[in-house]
Amino acid sequence: MSDLNKPCIICVAITGSLPRKANNPAVPITITEQVESTHAAFEAGASIVHAHVRNDDETPTSDPDKFAKLQEGLLKHCPGMIIQFSTGGRSGAGKERGAMLSLKPDMASLSVGSNNFPTRIYENAPDLVDWLAREMITHNVKPEIEAFDLSHIHQAALMHKDGRIKDTPYIQFVMGVKNAMPADKDVFDYYVKTVKRLSPNSQWCAAGIGPNQIILNEWSVAAGGHART
Amino acid sequence: MSDLNKPCIICVAITGSLPRKANNPAVPITITEQVESTHAAFEAGASIVHAHVRNDDETPTSDPDKFAKLQEGLLKHCPGMIIQFSTGGRSGAGKERGAMLSLKPDMASLSVGSNNFPTRIYENAPDLVDWLAREMITHNVKPEIEAFDLSHIHQAALMHKDGRIKDTPYIQFVMGVKNAMPADKDVFDYYVKTVKRLSPNSQWCAAGIGPNQIILNEWSVAAGGHART
Ligand SMILES: [Zn+2]
Ligand SMILES: [Zn+2]
Ligand SMILES: [Zn+2]
Ligand SMILES: [Zn+2]
Repeated sequence: MSDLNKPCIICVAITGSLPRKANNPAVPITITEQVESTHAAFEAGASIVHAHVRNDDETPTSDPDKFAKLQEGLLKHCPGMIIQFSTGGRSGAGKERGAMLSLKPDMASLSVGSNNFPTRIYENAPDLVDWLAREMITHNVKPEIEAFDLSHIHQAALMHKDGRIKDTPYIQFVMGVKNAMPADKDVFDYYVKTVKRLSPNSQWCAAGIGPNQIILNEWSVAAGGHART
Repeated sequence: MSDLNKPCIICVAITGSLPRKANNPAVPITITEQVESTHAAFEAGASIVHAHVRNDDETPTSDPDKFAKLQEGLLKHCPGMIIQFSTGGRSGAGKERGAMLSLKPDMASLSVGSNNFPTRIYENAPDLVDWLAREMITHNVKPEIEAFDLSHIHQAALMHKDGRIKDTPYIQFVMGVKNAMPADKDVFDYYVKTVKRLSPNSQWCAAGIGPNQIILNEWSVAAGGHART
């Protein structure tokens, strides 16, 4: 994990949970496509890969066998790259979301609160959050906290303080999601200030959804954070 | 609604959705107890009553008949007091939560996002939020926005801008709820700053849960907001 100390980490999210080939023919869906797409990003300088996996019909899944095959390919093609698996709620429900943690990826995403998404609730009930966090400790997986709102930064700092998160949290601000937090510069600056106040040794990065991605990367790099592409 | 322009509004929440007689024998449960308790607060200077209703076994309910009886008693005993009904999620699910809006109370609480509560998710799905907001417009009920997190203030400002909320939002900051936003002075100040930036004509107040209530009232009154007792 020493790469986390590099001045600017570029994290590549090769495949989200939603876009399909019909939306963008370039989106890598099969494990082979995902490995090759990550390989290209790795050669271009990306040091973390944030990965979701898909079924053959392109629907999102939390299937640990798919994650295992992806991990195998990534370890071979991208040696030294930090592998981060998504435990996000679009790919499964309840403990299914953490079924791949026993594969011991370097990192996994961890949502610590609930919020609204464009058409539904992003459900992260307190007991599920605590279970995922415990699984990450058990399998020595560093969590990336997905902060969809301000209280999630407070919750991450609290969970670190009381031992539910072992390492200093690595926090990602997610902005521009409809019905959650918009991409707002004043909020971004306050997020950075809050991380420095509550969790001074934390690293952080920012992810903007859709057209907000480039703006968020600019804000993030200018403020000393990492970038998500 | 001209009372909203008074320098400091005192809002009394006579009965929450949770405390029972076993926790506090003074908690008013029956309609008669609630009316008399509100009457006492009204004489002491409270100008808004935030009301939940209960079943005979003390469990919370959204029953419109109970709300109608409460409203009848309040109109008689507390003439001129602003009546605010809770549409909160502890008392019912889905559209049940707005069944009393046709009674045309002066105000009703409106949650515009989802968040975690101590042991569960506080579920306010986007379509339910929009339906409750529409019902409030239909029945000329002013919403009090319950801001459990920062994005809720942004969402309220957006809903006002796009017409889903008719009047300037009246916003209540709720702090000190476990797994949601803690009672944090820096966040409180940033909430006030955000309301002034996004919704400059909004009135706001603050509610602290349990032991945080007095602290929040102090912060609120000192910053020019209203108080919830
Ligand atoms: Zn390759
Ligand atoms: Zn993801
Ligand atoms: Zn209430
Ligand atoms: Zn009376």
